[in-house]
Amino acid sequence: MKRSFAELFSNTANKLQVSVIRELLKLTQKPEVISFAGGLPNPDAFPVPQIHEICPGVIDNPNALQYGTTEGVPELREALRKRMATKNVKCEIENIQITSGSQQALDILGRILLNPNDIVLTTCPTYLGAIQAFDFQSPRYELVEMDENSVIVEDFEARLEDIQKRGELNRLKFFYVTPTFHNPAGVTIPEKRRRQIIELCNAYDILVIEDDPYGELRYRGEDQPLLKSLDTEDRVVYLSTFSKILVPGFRIAWMVAPTDLIKKFIMAKQAVDLCTTTFTQYIGAEYLSRGYVDQHIKKIKEIYGRKMHIMLRSMAEYFPEEAQYAEPDGGMFVWVRLPEHINTIEIFPKVVEKNVAYVVGSAFYPNGKGLNTMRLNFTHPTDEKIEEGVKRLGNVLHEILK
Amino acid sequence: MKRSFAELFSNTANKLQVSVIRELLKLTQKPEVISFAGGLPNPDAFPVPQIHEICPGVIDNPNALQYGTTEGVPELREALRKRMATKNVKCEIENIQITSGSQQALDILGRILLNPNDIVLTTCPTYLGAIQAFDFQSPRYELVEMDENSVIVEDFEARLEDIQKRGELNRLKFFYVTPTFHNPAGVTIPEKRRRQIIELCNAYDILVIEDDPYGELRYRGEDQPLLKSLDTEDRVVYLSTFSKILVPGFRIAWMVAPTDLIKKFIMAKQAVDLCTTTFTQYIGAEYLSRGYVDQHIKKIKEIYGRKMHIMLRSMAEYFPEEAQYAEPDGGMFVWVRLPEHINTIEIFPKVVEKNVAYVVGSAFYPNGKGLNTMRLNFTHPTDEKIEEGVKRLGNVLHEILK
Repeated sequence: MKRSFAELFSNTANKLQVSVIRELLKLTQKPEVISFAGGLPNPDAFPVPQIHEICPGVIDNPNALQYGTTEGVPELREALRKRMATKNVKCEIENIQITSGSQQALDILGRILLNPNDIVLTTCPTYLGAIQAFDFQSPRYELVEMDENSVIVEDFEARLEDIQKRGELNRLKFFYVTPTFHNPAGVTIPEKRRRQIIELCNAYDILVIEDDPYGELRYRGEDQPLLKSLDTEDRVVYLSTFSKILVPGFRIAWMVAPTDLIKKFIMAKQAVDLCTTTFTQYIGAEYLSRGYVDQHIKKIKEIYGRKMHIMLRSMAEYFPEEAQYAEPDGGMFVWVRLPEHINTIEIFPKVVEKNVAYVVGSAFYPNGKGLNTMRLNFTHPTDEKIEEGVKRLGNVLHEILK
Repeated sequence: MKRSFAELFSNTANKLQVSVIRELLKLTQKPEVISFAGGLPNPDAFPVPQIHEICPGVIDNPNALQYGTTEGVPELREALRKRMATKNVKCEIENIQITSGSQQALDILGRILLNPNDIVLTTCPTYLGAIQAFDFQSPRYELVEMDENSVIVEDFEARLEDIQKRGELNRLKFFYVTPTFHNPAGVTIPEKRRRQIIELCNAYDILVIEDDPYGELRYRGEDQPLLKSLDTEDRVVYLSTFSKILVPGFRIAWMVAPTDLIKKFIMAKQAVDLCTTTFTQYIGAEYLSRGYVDQHIKKIKEIYGRKMHIMLRSMAEYFPEEAQYAEPDGGMFVWVRLPEHINTIEIFPKVVEKNVAYVVGSAFYPNGKGLNTMRLNFTHPTDEKIEEGVKRLGNVLHEILK
């Protein structure tokens, strides 16, 4: 080509830049590095024997090898309808849409809901993948503060009042939130706050996207009700995934949403990938209908609960007290806040030099803040490496802070 | 919600409408209908025993169950690099990108290449799924006429001259074409025309998207060289898929493209679905590296070649001579042109009444033309149903035309 690709690329494409994190993560590829940077499930938590049992029957089902409907495999959607009912979410199979990972749900929801300059209300920090998906549509972000109990309701209400005062409620398309074991912050919204949030969303007529990839991964404390289960006005779009309760490599997730939204979603998804992998959808359907899922979630919780305990115990032992963090009750991450004058991007090379790695927290701030924060994953490394890695990281932090 | 979804939806979403075809196809769901409307491979052509052999080893590979890289599984990309070399396409593994079906490649290429009102040059008719994907970006279409040998080079050059005269060559982002066993037209570009097209693309500096889902499915005649194999200036983006040579339900396809394009593609795909199903990518890699693919393609060609022969023989016997069609040498479709005064949308209910169905050809015309055309699929119905269906369709056509 004589024309450069910069000339050929769309404005959207030219805005896409290599993320800082991806670049930093390249530094962590050496085998000697203990990485708390990823968000990967642990292979020990994969139900390999169950998959071996399920697969042969699925291979012999021609529908599992053929193109599927855009909405998803009926057997899987029906099994999910039943499962959602056990979580006090009553819906019809028509309300359940299968997606190629929850990332696809975020991308398509952004495409069908957001015009440029529309407003996305979300937490600060928020899930990086959601920012990346929504950014395609060039929205503005209105950010809600969190504490150790996640969303601060007073600040949530204040944001809504601001937007209303500016006469922009019509530009506010949805509130995106991970209520349980927040990524990256690790925190969970207690029931009382959930009810207050739903009331405010009813009062201000706000659509909610409840992203719930980790809800099943509670290692202590009481389950809190899903926002969707408190939703009396069909305004909550619920997202969850098999990536943490089965395996990520199958790329199957689901959305529970109002039928009007799903109808439009299907039209968009048809042009995006026709349908989600039918083969793994059928494996997922069997995994649910044979009742393997709940037995196996017990095992996952044992493994991850132990790892979380090791990480928290090690942090208590090796981290300087200037490093603040809320102890999560589940999920995959611990969120660490260092003194304001520390920049986790700047100290990253020094940390990697000691063969340990984290994700810089600022990646999760649409407003470029959070420079003094970091996210630590405890599900992927071995128990020994968790303790050793925390020790190494603690030593660097002591050095830097002394 | 008090707000209607029409208020919440983006302009893009409000433009998405239920396609005529989808609505018409609903009429064909009854079991007694013999449908030539789909584009489905035949389950008899699925390599079930080979998948049984491959699966257990893949399940025992933790990488096949974990998240994968956005570019795709290295083992699969390397196997595809070797395969492309046998088709005289020399490239590095960095030039090979795995996608969640070719539909995803079309969607992401549209997103990273097209601004609103940019020009897409394509054939008339052209692949419906490509129109649906590109339409997200609201491009203009410049259409090239075809004959029984596909793209008419003189018309292709005339279109390029027009665009140049209008000073819009910079708005022309790519030429999208299915050179071999065109969907829907069934025609194939001969080598001489391929060379002329590449020369014109070099002269006018045009990017080409070569969509090649059916290239392996030749039942008679000589293979024609891939446009990509004639490309000396790295301006051809090649797309192919496992949907027709393995199974569609795995949702794995690949793209061969310049590294600058792939780098941007990866950034976009990361936000779109993180990665393609790793589990089925590993099955695909084994299917290639064990050499099953070429043995199995022989079997597919036997089955589909027989079905094509049955359909063409039946059409010769039962269709009125006013129904014109070019006999394809491969692929999945026969394209039929009726007299100008016949509208295949209007006669569709009458046809379905006789329990047979086709796809209305106008669906494949971005300009709403082709009202007198229809696409017939011969790969999915049983041999008996092909003959019986063609007979029924022929009878209706005789009635309508008498």
